[in-house]
Amino acid sequence: MTFPVVGMVGGGQLARMTHEAGIPLGIRFRLLSDTPQDSAAQVVSDVVVGDYRDLDTLRTFARGCDVITFDHEHVPTAHLRALEAEGIPVRPGPDALEHAQDKGVMRARLDAIGVPCPRHRIVADPADVVAFAAEGSGFPVVLKTVRGGYDGKGVWVVDGADEAAEPFRAGVPVLAEEKVDFARELAANVVRSPHGQAVAYPVVESVQVNGVCDTVIAPAPGLDPDLAAAAQELALKVAAELGVVGHLAVELFETRDGRILVNELAMRPHNSGHWTMDGAVTSQFANHVRAVLDLPLGDPRPRPPWTVMANVLGGDYPDMYTAYLHCMARDPQLKIHMYGKDVKPGRKVGHVNTYGDDLADVRERAAHAAGYLRGTIQE
Amino acid sequence: MTFPVVGMVGGGQLARMTHEAGIPLGIRFRLLSDTPQDSAAQVVSDVVVGDYRDLDTLRTFARGCDVITFDHEHVPTAHLRALEAEGIPVRPGPDALEHAQDKGVMRARLDAIGVPCPRHRIVADPADVVAFAAEGSGFPVVLKTVRGGYDGKGVWVVDGADEAAEPFRAGVPVLAEEKVDFARELAANVVRSPHGQAVAYPVVESVQVNGVCDTVIAPAPGLDPDLAAAAQELALKVAAELGVVGHLAVELFETRDGRILVNELAMRPHNSGHWTMDGAVTSQFANHVRAVLDLPLGDPRPRPPWTVMANVLGGDYPDMYTAYLHCMARDPQLKIHMYGKDVKPGRKVGHVNTYGDDLADVRERAAHAAGYLRGTIQE
Repeated sequence: MTFPVVGMVGGGQLARMTHEAGIPLGIRFRLLSDTPQDSAAQVVSDVVVGDYRDLDTLRTFARGCDVITFDHEHVPTAHLRALEAEGIPVRPGPDALEHAQDKGVMRARLDAIGVPCPRHRIVADPADVVAFAAEGSGFPVVLKTVRGGYDGKGVWVVDGADEAAEPFRAGVPVLAEEKVDFARELAANVVRSPHGQAVAYPVVESVQVNGVCDTVIAPAPGLDPDLAAAAQELALKVAAELGVVGHLAVELFETRDGRILVNELAMRPHNSGHWTMDGAVTSQFANHVRAVLDLPLGDPRPRPPWTVMANVLGGDYPDMYTAYLHCMARDPQLKIHMYGKDVKPGRKVGHVNTYGDDLADVRERAAHAAGYLRGTIQE
Repeated sequence: MTFPVVGMVGGGQLARMTHEAGIPLGIRFRLLSDTPQDSAAQVVSDVVVGDYRDLDTLRTFARGCDVITFDHEHVPTAHLRALEAEGIPVRPGPDALEHAQDKGVMRARLDAIGVPCPRHRIVADPADVVAFAAEGSGFPVVLKTVRGGYDGKGVWVVDGADEAAEPFRAGVPVLAEEKVDFARELAANVVRSPHGQAVAYPVVESVQVNGVCDTVIAPAPGLDPDLAAAAQELALKVAAELGVVGHLAVELFETRDGRILVNELAMRPHNSGHWTMDGAVTSQFANHVRAVLDLPLGDPRPRPPWTVMANVLGGDYPDMYTAYLHCMARDPQLKIHMYGKDVKPGRKVGHVNTYGDDLADVRERAAHAAGYLRGTIQE
């Protein structure tokens, strides 16, 4: 048979779950992993251990792959352009990926295509931050290094000039943004193929705790259908305009006055789409694989009325396996997804999905299981 | 973390799909495979290549495994008893497994516990077959070697003494059975844990073509609810009485006069349970893993009203990947499961699942996709 080889750069949990989704398609999966112990490296047969920042490593890895895709957005775009020039399809490609790597580039492009964002400007120093605040409604102001941030890292909320020095210390350009008075956070996730086919998942609500995603509710409860459609259209537009191939997560603020503003973009499977593994006809991982292979995309619609995803963070109690006994016995419908990662406090080591007809029940089950696995709930 | 290592003996598609189901649980999976190219060996990280008939190979493989389970029922029970004596949990254990290895042992035990079977007797030679026929309703008679048969191999339907010589040539004891005038074939699948917890999947209809499973419909359409409950109770009883751990498939005849008779037993995930991957809350593979680890079992109930599984057999056309384009575009809800096996005519190389509210539509979609992948349907 002539089944293709998908090369995945990065050995984290997104690669692990993409491999899981690729197995039924009979495709071959080749992994470039930092270490042989990485989350995905534990479960993939064909693993190359190496540094994705090294072009020769990437070249060697890419030999024999039919397409390259990513677990993260950190591969230098110059390297990706070199691979493309050598005839290796890279999906998403460097032109698209740049918008997920650099928040300054992303904001400029979204402005240019008329996608609503929080008020923002690249700032040069703390005095410039004060000027930015004064141009709008004052402090607090959100400061972000344009590169390298995730899960709340590289993000500061400052209340005045005296707090604004820290973000400039890394020597990376800093983006100032108004602190949006949002009602809640949403995510509009879409998948797009090189062919230009695209599918939109239902818009979800993402509940953050301490800057880290805690719970995702699909679909977002009580969301105005017009606003939901607008969010999906916005995400499809971003995917098409930026030439994204694969999964695109558009993280959004829903403002108290009923608007949506783009917070962040991620061009890979995303935490806000983990619910699709058990709650959608086709998971984000399966559709990402289909997209990078330019296969027709699968149905993104939800199967149950409600699906809730809760992240399992590391706590003080390292033995999560023993906690399975309680969690599985309490809820025979619970879906556990663990990543094979060592427990460290606050680290995302897995997630659970629950689904059903009654949102309150579905939320309670997810929160209970995630809390019990973490060790914050005992009973 | 203290996640266990599950050792899987055999590298076929059942091992491949069990690995897929084990990834979300964060367990480690170790494979004993005949070759590095076997279906499961392509997708598993920790593979030992060796011969499962060799005790030392099994011993070396089992070192570092927390439990051993199986892709097939061919491992000599003497070897399994040796592993057990050395402290390695083997699930299902040799006492149970013997009933799936030897049809003579299986029939004697089912008789002893009062489970209805077709009329049967071990026969010594063709003359004995004639005597067996005369004791009942005459020819045709079904002859089976007690060991080594599967998918119609090792099974003969004979119309007289002159056709009855062949089965005796292998030198294996031969079982004679009445040819049951069945209305259809059913399967009652259950999963049982060492703890004694057990779950029963809905009883399914299995449609055979040329002695090979072609289509499975879940649940069996129009099945009398009392007969369905009786079939589930029968399978639970067999699992408990034989001490099965893991998945047990009980293949049944539904007679024209409304009885059920046991045809075959399989103590592992089974083709008649592949529908559960997309059609049940917990798949047979996930529940098999949970059972062999003595974890609480997952909900076996169906998610949609109807799920249909159609096997993809090898045809004359080796390039099944190109056929994905048509199949996926035609049916965005189609679930393809390919096994990474080379196409040979008649070989099971994958299956498809479809589900929905309308059985006729669900059946048509499964049959179309399986036929198109095989190359018997063009359009």
